[in-house]
Amino acid sequence: MANFGLDSYFVTKVPANPIGQSAVNHLRRFGVNTGFIARGGDRLGIYFLESGASQRPSKVVYDRAHSAIAEAKPEDFNWPEILAGARWFHFTGITPALSDAVAEITLQAAKTAKGMGLTVSCDLNYRKKLWTTEKANQVMSRLVQYVDLCIANEEDAEKVFGIKAADTDITKGALSDAGYKDVARQLVERFGFKYVAITLRESRSASDNGWSALLYDGKEYYKSRKYDIHIVDRVGGGDSFGGGLIYALLSGKQPQEAIEFAVAASCLKHTIPGDFNMVAVDEVEALAGGDGSGRVQR
Amino acid sequence: MANFGLDSYFVTKVPANPIGQSAVNHLRRFGVNTGFIARGGDRLGIYFLESGASQRPSKVVYDRAHSAIAEAKPEDFNWPEILAGARWFHFTGITPALSDAVAEITLQAAKTAKGMGLTVSCDLNYRKKLWTTEKANQVMSRLVQYVDLCIANEEDAEKVFGIKAADTDITKGALSDAGYKDVARQLVERFGFKYVAITLRESRSASDNGWSALLYDGKEYYKSRKYDIHIVDRVGGGDSFGGGLIYALLSGKQPQEAIEFAVAASCLKHTIPGDFNMVAVDEVEALAGGDGSGRVQR
Amino acid sequence: MANFGLDSYFVTKVPANPIGQSAVNHLRRFGVNTGFIARGGDRLGIYFLESGASQRPSKVVYDRAHSAIAEAKPEDFNWPEILAGARWFHFTGITPALSDAVAEITLQAAKTAKGMGLTVSCDLNYRKKLWTTEKANQVMSRLVQYVDLCIANEEDAEKVFGIKAADTDITKGALSDAGYKDVARQLVERFGFKYVAITLRESRSASDNGWSALLYDGKEYYKSRKYDIHIVDRVGGGDSFGGGLIYALLSGKQPQEAIEFAVAASCLKHTIPGDFNMVAVDEVEALAGGDGSGRVQR
Amino acid sequence: MANFGLDSYFVTKVPANPIGQSAVNHLRRFGVNTGFIARGGDRLGIYFLESGASQRPSKVVYDRAHSAIAEAKPEDFNWPEILAGARWFHFTGITPALSDAVAEITLQAAKTAKGMGLTVSCDLNYRKKLWTTEKANQVMSRLVQYVDLCIANEEDAEKVFGIKAADTDITKGALSDAGYKDVARQLVERFGFKYVAITLRESRSASDNGWSALLYDGKEYYKSRKYDIHIVDRVGGGDSFGGGLIYALLSGKQPQEAIEFAVAASCLKHTIPGDFNMVAVDEVEALAGGDGSGRVQR
Amino acid sequence: MANFGLDSYFVTKVPANPIGQSAVNHLRRFGVNTGFIARGGDRLGIYFLESGASQRPSKVVYDRAHSAIAEAKPEDFNWPEILAGARWFHFTGITPALSDAVAEITLQAAKTAKGMGLTVSCDLNYRKKLWTTEKANQVMSRLVQYVDLCIANEEDAEKVFGIKAADTDITKGALSDAGYKDVARQLVERFGFKYVAITLRESRSASDNGWSALLYDGKEYYKSRKYDIHIVDRVGGGDSFGGGLIYALLSGKQPQEAIEFAVAASCLKHTIPGDFNMVAVDEVEALAGGDGSGRVQR
Amino acid sequence: MANFGLDSYFVTKVPANPIGQSAVNHLRRFGVNTGFIARGGDRLGIYFLESGASQRPSKVVYDRAHSAIAEAKPEDFNWPEILAGARWFHFTGITPALSDAVAEITLQAAKTAKGMGLTVSCDLNYRKKLWTTEKANQVMSRLVQYVDLCIANEEDAEKVFGIKAADTDITKGALSDAGYKDVARQLVERFGFKYVAITLRESRSASDNGWSALLYDGKEYYKSRKYDIHIVDRVGGGDSFGGGLIYALLSGKQPQEAIEFAVAASCLKHTIPGDFNMVAVDEVEALAGGDGSGRVQR
Repeated sequence: MANFGLDSYFVTKVPANPIGQSAVNHLRRFGVNTGFIARGGDRLGIYFLESGASQRPSKVVYDRAHSAIAEAKPEDFNWPEILAGARWFHFTGITPALSDAVAEITLQAAKTAKGMGLTVSCDLNYRKKLWTTEKANQVMSRLVQYVDLCIANEEDAEKVFGIKAADTDITKGALSDAGYKDVARQLVERFGFKYVAITLRESRSASDNGWSALLYDGKEYYKSRKYDIHIVDRVGGGDSFGGGLIYALLSGKQPQEAIEFAVAASCLKHTIPGDFNMVAVDEVEALAGGDGSGRVQR
Repeated sequence: MANFGLDSYFVTKVPANPIGQSAVNHLRRFGVNTGFIARGGDRLGIYFLESGASQRPSKVVYDRAHSAIAEAKPEDFNWPEILAGARWFHFTGITPALSDAVAEITLQAAKTAKGMGLTVSCDLNYRKKLWTTEKANQVMSRLVQYVDLCIANEEDAEKVFGIKAADTDITKGALSDAGYKDVARQLVERFGFKYVAITLRESRSASDNGWSALLYDGKEYYKSRKYDIHIVDRVGGGDSFGGGLIYALLSGKQPQEAIEFAVAASCLKHTIPGDFNMVAVDEVEALAGGDGSGRVQR
Repeated sequence: MANFGLDSYFVTKVPANPIGQSAVNHLRRFGVNTGFIARGGDRLGIYFLESGASQRPSKVVYDRAHSAIAEAKPEDFNWPEILAGARWFHFTGITPALSDAVAEITLQAAKTAKGMGLTVSCDLNYRKKLWTTEKANQVMSRLVQYVDLCIANEEDAEKVFGIKAADTDITKGALSDAGYKDVARQLVERFGFKYVAITLRESRSASDNGWSALLYDGKEYYKSRKYDIHIVDRVGGGDSFGGGLIYALLSGKQPQEAIEFAVAASCLKHTIPGDFNMVAVDEVEALAGGDGSGRVQR
Repeated sequence: MANFGLDSYFVTKVPANPIGQSAVNHLRRFGVNTGFIARGGDRLGIYFLESGASQRPSKVVYDRAHSAIAEAKPEDFNWPEILAGARWFHFTGITPALSDAVAEITLQAAKTAKGMGLTVSCDLNYRKKLWTTEKANQVMSRLVQYVDLCIANEEDAEKVFGIKAADTDITKGALSDAGYKDVARQLVERFGFKYVAITLRESRSASDNGWSALLYDGKEYYKSRKYDIHIVDRVGGGDSFGGGLIYALLSGKQPQEAIEFAVAASCLKHTIPGDFNMVAVDEVEALAGGDGSGRVQR
Repeated sequence: MANFGLDSYFVTKVPANPIGQSAVNHLRRFGVNTGFIARGGDRLGIYFLESGASQRPSKVVYDRAHSAIAEAKPEDFNWPEILAGARWFHFTGITPALSDAVAEITLQAAKTAKGMGLTVSCDLNYRKKLWTTEKANQVMSRLVQYVDLCIANEEDAEKVFGIKAADTDITKGALSDAGYKDVARQLVERFGFKYVAITLRESRSASDNGWSALLYDGKEYYKSRKYDIHIVDRVGGGDSFGGGLIYALLSGKQPQEAIEFAVAASCLKHTIPGDFNMVAVDEVEALAGGDGSGRVQR
Repeated sequence: MANFGLDSYFVTKVPANPIGQSAVNHLRRFGVNTGFIARGGDRLGIYFLESGASQRPSKVVYDRAHSAIAEAKPEDFNWPEILAGARWFHFTGITPALSDAVAEITLQAAKTAKGMGLTVSCDLNYRKKLWTTEKANQVMSRLVQYVDLCIANEEDAEKVFGIKAADTDITKGALSDAGYKDVARQLVERFGFKYVAITLRESRSASDNGWSALLYDGKEYYKSRKYDIHIVDRVGGGDSFGGGLIYALLSGKQPQEAIEFAVAASCLKHTIPGDFNMVAVDEVEALAGGDGSGRVQR
């Protein structure tokens, strides 16, 4: 969102040492405001990534336990102060998965944000190496009551809330439109979300994916174009979808336009090495507007 | 052409400093004769390239203004001396786009070459970041009167001379054979070229392109095979086509053989990182001869 | 095989200098037992690899002449001692191609192994840059009389033994199932192998291959799934098939399971840079079991 | 200064393209406020550096002509707005050397700063490849009338103002204390500076330098310790001295303490690759406090 | 020691994941026997190193808490089995500093080793970021009762046991021979060591150190040559001294020869990037024998 | 010499494959004329270099046996044609050390050159890993009868001709001026050289050397300045001395000037990574003229 020109804050906790500072510096590079990042704790959580290709999947080894954020305390964050003047608060399911204290912090944040009139969004982002489906269900059920926009991928809704997409077997990459619409409908019905967005990944291999999404506003379903992506780096694909959708909604785009923007933004992320979606609004709009030919611009 | 064993000269101007020398050294590495490169001026033109992938196009930021060649003067080059003993003179539309003086230098060169009996070829190579279509039209119209072989891609003829390929929308990558034949015919009709060669790029994405070409000698149309290329580096694709075609014609290949050689040569360039087509004649001929299986040679 | 947890020995000869030691160290890294590697001779054989892409094939320049192993003498290896306690002995056609002395050493090894009750396997692995088909025929014919499992690819059987697959033109990548079954049958008939395994590579380009295999036990034909691989590094593809098959047979898998394991193992190798198939049994089994979706595991 | 925790702004002009943005991003990484950087113009100035070693000097090839900042116009900068709330304004002699317009911009900035009560500092930083001594004299003489703290190295005072250090031959690296005190005194006398700081580099080779400095407040001379530095990267050595001195004076250090801090800060810069002095206040103070033993801290 | 040809085991615990395996692989490369490394726990301890130069010290940020070895349990190691057939057991003060359980494991190992007749050595290796002097004193006092050879550097004896070297200020790098002899004598007197070895580092800067050592056998003092080292990588300097000394004593060298070997071995380590002392016995002996001229060997 | 602007030819033999071509390309980069390099044979000789530092010497592992040049035949080179129009022929002792045939080729070349009136120079360059002192003596004694300028380092004269420098122990780095003058005198006396140049390396460590040289013209001794070099890459140090001396003599410098130029040129080579002395005449003259301060040139 910072790359799209929005005034964006990342709120977390990092250790008060050169490693934590280095992470902050990396964020600052992209213009993210790091002023509310708490300092303290013992270590920065890391993970190791083996980059997949073709039939070999990417693999992640987490080394996040005991990180500064996982051991953060509610008093590390003064939410009314942090949220003052903001329009939107976003979190993902990874954060409350880190510890009970962090789940509590996330709850306070979401509740405060809602109370202060911000729009609240949540990407369910279920990670089986971080928590069980039972624990996720229990924690996320409390959190989503403050959520306006719920983002999920093809397996999150089932893993977190037990809501199944009819006729879909994700390891086969066979996605049914009707099934996903049904999932979106169930989510709105059960939790009262204003919007549900579902990303639809057809994973043909670690190198080639189909990528599209669905937005549901409780009345209409808005289906995006589908991109056949030759993947450079898939990490950050989901987050870049969230960032794109929030930007699109904040800048007043209509639902169809918004979901196209979000999918195009995250399509581009899949072509960029690293975690960050280093594209500008005009690049996303050129793709969303239909030019995916990849011709050299010179 | 130097890689194909021809005695090849690159004529340009570089600053008399280590940066200019470094560029000369890089050319010498491949056996290009650099003896007529003028020295002087303030800087070496550069450009920045963002390498595209999948739906993300490559992007070029030019930083060529005020370069040694852009500010070259006619007296920097003694064309009768430079061209003595040569058989062929080639230039592209990028050179006259740099400045009026360079356009004048190019004109002198082409005229002198023609007068001395060399074959003259020109790749229209239109670059919208360097000049307008109006200016291009005016300058190129004078230059092409000395040209025997005109090379164009899918949009050059329209941008430079307003000649349209019927039924073709290049951003959709939909190319019509009939349309291109018509363009070639119009070019020959209007300017009297001995040969027109048109490269036909089907840009499915920045990673995957269809690649073929058409040669027209005023009577017959020679259509090459089409290659489906998984791209490593697209830069230099057009130039390597020109180099391949000139080599083929200079070495006495018949039109069909010549266009196959040129397309195979430039197909291989797309698989090589960097600007230079580091392949030998036997490699091009193996591909042109039909072996595109990519089997290890050991 | 060491990566699959088997106690594996690599028997060769390297020079008694830092270059030879470096090669040994690299093997040790993966847990390969290097205790029977002889030291001596003048140099370590090397080869230069140009990595292909799309229509440009990989190319190998051998610089193996006069290597320590090529000039090894029979007395460098005490086969009864080396093979004591082992269950399996594997060699490929590259080794006897190096010199007459090495062919003799390979013969002693195979004969001793067979005599001590080990299973003996051979990958024909014909390399036209190392020897002629006549020489290969003469040497390999003597060697294969001690062989239980013969591995061949689409051209080995023809080049080494003159056995042709009906209706197959490998440069076109057109493979006929019936033809390969016929080759396998002829191999068993002529040499009495217990098993013949044939790898079936459909080389669409240097970047994209179809990859499958056939196992024949003299009675039944077991055909594996076919993988469409987007290639990262093709080197070691054949060896990783052999390693996978030996592991599968040694661990008691049934023929269909065994050929699926071998093909999945070597499919994964094509996605890994370098010569070594750095995958574990569970990764191979996940793929052989049907999950080739390449989804991130986290 | 940003690394030392001060709220620091870099004011310049960069092109409104990805290259300009990339430069801005690099500054943001270190927490420098880039909010007043103007966007526009054609190119980002660059230079090429050959890193010297031992008897081989580093060499710089400038390619700064026609850069965005060199062609900036006075209306690009609203100095009263930029300087509002600031305590200090710093510039170096490189900036006014770029063009008359930039010299004018610098003059407006310095004058405005002085008028608004800021402390103004200037590092003479004479560059013979950018302007002549005559031009430098004429421009800098007008600028320094608004300057409180003047920073110079061993040759600046002579090249810019014709003020010579008695008994010093800089190519021999022989520096005379008495001579430098005399230069400092002459500078104060002629221009009325509140402080003059002179860096004293003993260039034994491109790899080993002696490094110290002198601060004169019109009454007393404060000489720092001298460091014998084994150089990693000398670029940014002078700027890091200026940054250290400004920090020291802004944070209320006494003159002797201040000059020790500045010299220690810039000593550390010489040990860090790249242009930026990535050290914190406590690291500088540990060195200024006497621990230059380089022992591992663990 | 593995590089010197000794049969060497590294006993530790690493997580049963690819990161742990990667560490094991790295050790195997050098021929270290990894057969007794336990698998389990959550993570591999890591540390971040900033490589110092000149006046800038190297800095270490530990991220070792909660590592597999720090949380190891006594039942992870069967010492009688591990030590069977071994001649020597070595540990350093870093291991017991990790946790009480690891201190207990170390105690069991040392006690078992002593009881089985092995020689036991300990490098005090005090790390202030891992434990306090009080804790170190209490734990190490119990451990050293099983130790035959105690290795210390210029500050260990004071920090761990409160034994001071007279007249030495380590931050000044001023080492007194008499002082160190006195420390060695006190250590033998208090703990009954058979040998005490003290490394004497004169840290002129992070780039240049004096390096020598002293060996005391309770009767005589053996002082080594002193090397003036231009440092490439100082990490592992102490461990390579220990390895050299153990090798020298195990191979029957006399005390003066032994201390010269150990100092020469660790001198060479300072010239090698990374943690491992990749030198062979003949290289160490050439240096210990007096050839430190650094002439090319060809 | 090509870098100094002389028209320079490198005459050797490389295999007719991409590896040989790659070597030729590398030479062409620097403007060396490669037109007389013969193509053929089996392989390009290589060597492996471990770069030393401080007390650890650089080490070379040769893998040159059976190289194209080592197996060259006299008929590969037509010396009258090659040498036509040339002024100088230079060879080193490494070439004839490769094989008897190459020694014969060298002899033909030297004899032909001498007969055609060229100046002939030889760098003795004794390599103990390539031949014995006896063989060197026998071969070089025949070759030097055609030599005008003989270049030797501190040990060559003794190893090749048994001529000792009085009072010098090279492993101690103690060089006696008187001793070297005596060696130069003996060389002239025995072989009638017009010039003898001796390089004097004081090898304090692999990182720091003293470097100077002596030129003797049969009457006077010309001793150069001595440089204390902090070494980046010592490889090519001797060859760059030879190149510098030949350039200096060819361009008419007087003996003292010539030896200063040669030593300065090779001093600079020690500061440049790789085998090539990438400096221009003005850089060498600046150093020879006394500026070794290493100040940044900007």
